[in-house]
Amino acid sequence: MKRRVAVLGATGIVGQRFVSLLGDHPWFELAIVAASEKSIGRKYCEAVRWVIEKPIPSSIADLELSPISNDIAKEEIDIVFTALPAEVAKDIEIELAKKGIIVISNASPMRLEPDIPLLNPEVNADHVEVIEYQRRVRRWSGAIVKVPNCTTAILTLSLKPIMDEFGIKRVIVSTMQALSGAGLTGVPSMLILDNLIPFIEGEEEKVESESRKILGYPTSDGITLNSNFVVSASCHRVMVLEGHTESVFVETVRDVDVEDLIKSMEEFKSNKIRGLGLPTAPEKPIVVRREIDRPQPRFDRMEGRGMSVVIGRIRKDYALNGVKYIVLGHNTLRGAAGTGVLIAELMVKKGLA
Amino acid sequence: MKRRVAVLGATGIVGQRFVSLLGDHPWFELAIVAASEKSIGRKYCEAVRWVIEKPIPSSIADLELSPISNDIAKEEIDIVFTALPAEVAKDIEIELAKKGIIVISNASPMRLEPDIPLLNPEVNADHVEVIEYQRRVRRWSGAIVKVPNCTTAILTLSLKPIMDEFGIKRVIVSTMQALSGAGLTGVPSMLILDNLIPFIEGEEEKVESESRKILGYPTSDGITLNSNFVVSASCHRVMVLEGHTESVFVETVRDVDVEDLIKSMEEFKSNKIRGLGLPTAPEKPIVVRREIDRPQPRFDRMEGRGMSVVIGRIRKDYALNGVKYIVLGHNTLRGAAGTGVLIAELMVKKGLA
Amino acid sequence: MKRRVAVLGATGIVGQRFVSLLGDHPWFELAIVAASEKSIGRKYCEAVRWVIEKPIPSSIADLELSPISNDIAKEEIDIVFTALPAEVAKDIEIELAKKGIIVISNASPMRLEPDIPLLNPEVNADHVEVIEYQRRVRRWSGAIVKVPNCTTAILTLSLKPIMDEFGIKRVIVSTMQALSGAGLTGVPSMLILDNLIPFIEGEEEKVESESRKILGYPTSDGITLNSNFVVSASCHRVMVLEGHTESVFVETVRDVDVEDLIKSMEEFKSNKIRGLGLPTAPEKPIVVRREIDRPQPRFDRMEGRGMSVVIGRIRKDYALNGVKYIVLGHNTLRGAAGTGVLIAELMVKKGLA
Amino acid sequence: MKRRVAVLGATGIVGQRFVSLLGDHPWFELAIVAASEKSIGRKYCEAVRWVIEKPIPSSIADLELSPISNDIAKEEIDIVFTALPAEVAKDIEIELAKKGIIVISNASPMRLEPDIPLLNPEVNADHVEVIEYQRRVRRWSGAIVKVPNCTTAILTLSLKPIMDEFGIKRVIVSTMQALSGAGLTGVPSMLILDNLIPFIEGEEEKVESESRKILGYPTSDGITLNSNFVVSASCHRVMVLEGHTESVFVETVRDVDVEDLIKSMEEFKSNKIRGLGLPTAPEKPIVVRREIDRPQPRFDRMEGRGMSVVIGRIRKDYALNGVKYIVLGHNTLRGAAGTGVLIAELMVKKGLA
Repeated sequence: MKRRVAVLGATGIVGQRFVSLLGDHPWFELAIVAASEKSIGRKYCEAVRWVIEKPIPSSIADLELSPISNDIAKEEIDIVFTALPAEVAKDIEIELAKKGIIVISNASPMRLEPDIPLLNPEVNADHVEVIEYQRRVRRWSGAIVKVPNCTTAILTLSLKPIMDEFGIKRVIVSTMQALSGAGLTGVPSMLILDNLIPFIEGEEEKVESESRKILGYPTSDGITLNSNFVVSASCHRVMVLEGHTESVFVETVRDVDVEDLIKSMEEFKSNKIRGLGLPTAPEKPIVVRREIDRPQPRFDRMEGRGMSVVIGRIRKDYALNGVKYIVLGHNTLRGAAGTGVLIAELMVKKGLA
Repeated sequence: MKRRVAVLGATGIVGQRFVSLLGDHPWFELAIVAASEKSIGRKYCEAVRWVIEKPIPSSIADLELSPISNDIAKEEIDIVFTALPAEVAKDIEIELAKKGIIVISNASPMRLEPDIPLLNPEVNADHVEVIEYQRRVRRWSGAIVKVPNCTTAILTLSLKPIMDEFGIKRVIVSTMQALSGAGLTGVPSMLILDNLIPFIEGEEEKVESESRKILGYPTSDGITLNSNFVVSASCHRVMVLEGHTESVFVETVRDVDVEDLIKSMEEFKSNKIRGLGLPTAPEKPIVVRREIDRPQPRFDRMEGRGMSVVIGRIRKDYALNGVKYIVLGHNTLRGAAGTGVLIAELMVKKGLA
Repeated sequence: MKRRVAVLGATGIVGQRFVSLLGDHPWFELAIVAASEKSIGRKYCEAVRWVIEKPIPSSIADLELSPISNDIAKEEIDIVFTALPAEVAKDIEIELAKKGIIVISNASPMRLEPDIPLLNPEVNADHVEVIEYQRRVRRWSGAIVKVPNCTTAILTLSLKPIMDEFGIKRVIVSTMQALSGAGLTGVPSMLILDNLIPFIEGEEEKVESESRKILGYPTSDGITLNSNFVVSASCHRVMVLEGHTESVFVETVRDVDVEDLIKSMEEFKSNKIRGLGLPTAPEKPIVVRREIDRPQPRFDRMEGRGMSVVIGRIRKDYALNGVKYIVLGHNTLRGAAGTGVLIAELMVKKGLA
Repeated sequence: MKRRVAVLGATGIVGQRFVSLLGDHPWFELAIVAASEKSIGRKYCEAVRWVIEKPIPSSIADLELSPISNDIAKEEIDIVFTALPAEVAKDIEIELAKKGIIVISNASPMRLEPDIPLLNPEVNADHVEVIEYQRRVRRWSGAIVKVPNCTTAILTLSLKPIMDEFGIKRVIVSTMQALSGAGLTGVPSMLILDNLIPFIEGEEEKVESESRKILGYPTSDGITLNSNFVVSASCHRVMVLEGHTESVFVETVRDVDVEDLIKSMEEFKSNKIRGLGLPTAPEKPIVVRREIDRPQPRFDRMEGRGMSVVIGRIRKDYALNGVKYIVLGHNTLRGAAGTGVLIAELMVKKGLA
């Protein structure tokens, strides 16, 4: 029987991606879509400014929009996906978790709290076990699990095989991020055409801290310990619709052989979720392109239905004694809603939802 | 009396910038404009696809285009500016130098040869003295002086006060470069709209090697010694008309105090050319912006008539133990023709042209 | 002695253009800049998101922003330029006119009222005489004069010589309008990149009605009579920063000879304002380009400092028995603030302000 | 059994679309892909710069590229699709037709010759009968059939129900055409960013003449007679990847009732091909959108897998006594390769190929 799910914040860009993925999902039935006040009571298809390449799932088009609130009963809904603004997310999510609902949240608050799993399943599916500790200390019958920041989700997937094979000391990352990351109306065309904006509020801090948590280790205490490398990020907005491109420089513990690294990346299947049969998991989480000028967002962002990251230009770095490369990922799929749905699938399979 | 000058490769983007700067120059008279075969004999204004914001200087519009060749007499022309493709530049430039002509070249060949000055005047005007050695060993009565690669010209100007104040160990730079850098037809719109291209042929190698030469030291031998820090670059093309933006991470020898660094940058006047009264020298070679989201190419590239670099977001870097920041410069002015003209002015003032 | 002037709505795109033109104007002193609530009391340079190619005039940068209101005394200010949203403009403008102030308004309300001059000076400077009737019936000591809709200002300037030489029966116009016409944040980049929007609210109605008023005739009653041709418009937004391009098809009364028409356009000096020495009037209100692919917004919008329209591709139209062509104009200069300032100059010269 | 087919000019944008459509076609087997000299002998996937949203069909990726020539045997290939430059197309196409091959050509030469069918199947599938006359007079055992110009294919599909219901006297069309229409490298980004180009070589003439042939009548002579309305076009390039948008003004014979017209368009199934079961035929050749701001290229171009045209903003036109509207179509699918494949399907079904 399908789990009944809800999406809070269903009309924004990430919300649209959730709706698109959940509208025909084999394991989930999207029963509630909620949006801000002005849309309540309207049909989803009439209230939304749909910008996704596929049409609105027909099962959702005529659904009436509900208010964003914690007024959702455990009997009615098993899992709530949230794509809410940071300032309203936290209280609602906590109330839902108290009621016994599983909350999978794309909002940034609480991502760094030690008892809140921050999951990028192919990288750290095992961190989901932190829920046990969370329930114990918070006395929740439900749970809150967080989806990482978009840039971080893409980055950490690329770093995982490097860490495993060669060890990481330092990471320098400079990004070229898509417009969709700022939401439907976030970047006015008058300010970005023939231009770029070398600043994204709060982004660098998120990348620097979340990366270490995701690549950290679960401990016997039930919480996770950060990995001990350091990350420095510089984040920039460019005129691309979807797909974050990241220029990454890594200082490694051991000398990198580029062909070995490519092999590790191409063979990276993630023993964390392999064999679980999660419908949203891409066959290859990492795709390596050997052309000199790839990955490129317009041509590569939909690799693995938007769930793979694409890596190219892998080369030795002589300044840092390590490796440098380009990684690209779809910021609202791999970097947001897609990873959210993948987490939900993982939890179902693990008997946690 | 004005020096008579020529521009070889006058119809390309860098050529147009040379024409625009030299058409009304107080010290120079642009007497010859040369272009590729199909344009020879046509009026400049009819053969060129002019893309510069100011009109073609009226003194040049009706000039007839000459062939690109070394068939220019010392009696006729004092200085030749070249904006030629790398594959044809070298031979022509050498022939002209033999004849006694001063060649100021934007082409990449020979930039790294130890007897060829590679000049970014505010940074290393003193390297012009290498000409003496060049003339001795090459037995030329003229000379060849090279304009740095565009990205490198912008980068090294930003690095100079850091090197002077705090010392540099390592530099990591990730760029977002303008379309004009690839020439008028270099980047087809079908391949860059809603996209970016994370590769620019030969660019990273140029940045990594030229930076060290420009920031190096003249020796008593008459040549220059490279500075001993290392540079690692990753270069990318984005959909911006003019203006290269660079995200720079610097490991310094001494601890950086951000306010001290800003002060050094704002006060940077370059004792190398200060007081020489060079017409193309910007009043402030470095402009620091304190807004959180600057510099931006569309709004800042024309700072100092395109000859200043604009630096923003200067902040400590904890991964590299140093500093990170954004620097922007106009790639065809500060990064090409503007610096070429500034070099010519320097040489006139020094009695070398 | 300079007239003291104010700009209401000084931080928007049209407001910025007014500030840029009035900051160094030989006849006017910009004494008051007013903006919406959140900016009141802040320095202009800090409150504005400046997007104009020239810097903020130094005389204005530190001016403190006032509230938008009718609380401006005749003793203090001679002329008020308004760049206000339609919904707030009307009441304020009427109150100011009652007080004896000359209001030059870029807002759409009242443009079609018979006693309100709608001025595109080179086309219908004589309509300014309608003020006499306006004052009589409204009992105002000041006056309200309207700047036309941007698309209409550009269109009517191109139509004027055709009407004079050949007579006009019908006009069909299809536009490609710049982003700036929708204001700083009007068009989100997510909705326009790799796209166009074939609708602009209220625009077609404005073009269809205002054109006939501007090209109409003053009568002995003191009001103006619409010209009797019909206009049909279709208006579309494209990804261009500044400059509206219009594809115009005109059915003429008499057969058009294309060369005669070009001559009329090139010689069009406007006997309406010729010889008045208005500083903002372009030397040539109409510039004809003979290249097959001009005018183009990026290259031609600043013609005549943004006050000329540029016409190209003038050719016979065999479907309508007339002529078709492309006209381009700068929508926030010729189509808004520039024409506003030109109107003010006209009124000063005519002794009306 | 599948027909064996070839694509000449397989690496350009239209060629890529042909390959994408034919790679998995139920009725056709793509056996030969031919390209210009520098690609001959290379694998298709290595020689092509693939820009289509779907991957290269796996059956084609490793196919070796052949030379473009008429050296194709009837025994080997039944149908040749050509996407060749106009200057080389004609001779090759004639030679192939002589040999008994069916040539479906996207090249412009011969489109207006009276014995060459110019087919937009839903509009004029019956014109295919002209082949009989063609074979008689040319003594060919094969045949040449032409795909219309892209803009014209889209326009005529929108005009067909208007002509049938209300009659057409005059058509004025002003276009905003996509970059792909100029080929992969046709429009340099430096010349179109923040710009548009109000001219497309030869395009207006094609629209004006081809439209009348397509909407004309087959006669008892075996050839077709042009419809007798007149068309005037103005064609412009804008920064959109795919999808031509056309602003159309139509003078009708009878008064248009807008709701009746919308009904005719929505019900337009084309009795010309209805019931033939052609795989590439869209279910609805015309889709009407009632939102005030549609169609838009990014969101609507893939309607009906790129084979439907999308019409919006249908409104009375009072200048022309008729109707005005916006029509959008995918220029390389409905406007080129898609219509080419649809023609081939029609011919198979009619027993002509």
